[in-house]
This record gives sequence, structure tokens and C-alpha cells, in this order.
Amino acid sequence: MKATVRVELKDGVLDPQGVTIRNALVDMGYPEVGSVRSGRIFTLDVDADGSASAKTRVEEMCRRLLANPVIEKYTIEVIE
Amino acid sequence: MKATVRVELKDGVLDPQGVTIRNALVDMGYPEVGSVRSGRIFTLDVDADGSASAKTRVEEMCRRLLANPVIEKYTIEVIE
Repeated sequence: MKATVRVELKDGVLDPQGVTIRNALVDMGYPEVGSVRSGRIFTLDVDADGSASAKTRVEEMCRRLLANPVIEKYTIEVIE
Repeated sequence: MKATVRVELKDGVLDPQGVTIRNALVDMGYPEVGSVRSGRIFTLDVDADGSASAKTRVEEMCRRLLANPVIEKYTIEVIE
């Protein structure tokens, strides 16, 4: 089973990396870019009985290791 | 218009960060995790006439700044 985890900063949390990328894009000739937010994505191969149990386990992994719940939010998508 | 860019290592390219995360997860009690691949995600606010022209511009940004086409692949999703 494949699980995709998207980890992004919560709304309102400053994203200096995103600001830097946005400024670079504007300098490179893309003034249409208003803002950029950056995040991480993880693709996990997980051995599980079903997608519900896989999701529960991956959610635990997010809380414990993959994300920082204080400043980050995450979404999990499980594909058979 | 919002564009989401997913930048991931091409298949076959070594991912030491993913290996480290996988080993950490196994050590933490998740032996069901077979492999982890890591990537980056960017959410861009783009001013464009339509989703097709937004996609063309964002594709150019990917090639020039957001991704390293030698070792990385990217997917773009444009949402109105």
C-alpha cells in the first residue's frame, strides 16, 4: 500500500523559504507570482491490512516524526 | 489562481533522507514501512488569464528554479 503525506506550514506561520522563492521568481521575470508556500512530501510503502488501518498508522508517524504539529499541518492519502 | 507543484526524485535516484526516515520509523516501532521517498511541495498564488497559461508559466518556473530536471521530476496541478 502506498501512502502520500503532505506536510505544510499552518496558515499564518511565516515561511521564509517561500518568500525567498517568491522574490527569486519575481526577479527572474515572473511578477504574476503573488506568494509561495513551501512544504514537504513523503511517499511511504506500507504493509497493512487495509487502507483505514494504514491511515491510522501513518497518522501516528506524522505526529511522532514526519511533522511538527505545533506549526505544521499534514494530509494523508492512501492508495492501494 | 493556485498552483501546486510536487517535486520528487526520479525513480532510481538515491534518496538518503528517505532512507534515514525509513530507518527511524522502523526503530520507532513501524516495521511495516518498506520504503520512504521524500520530496518538496510548493503552493503558488499565480495571476493568470486561464489555467492553461498558468500551467505553462509554472512549468517554466519548475525547469528554471523549482526543480532540478537532471534528478527530479515534477507534477503541476492548477486550481481556479
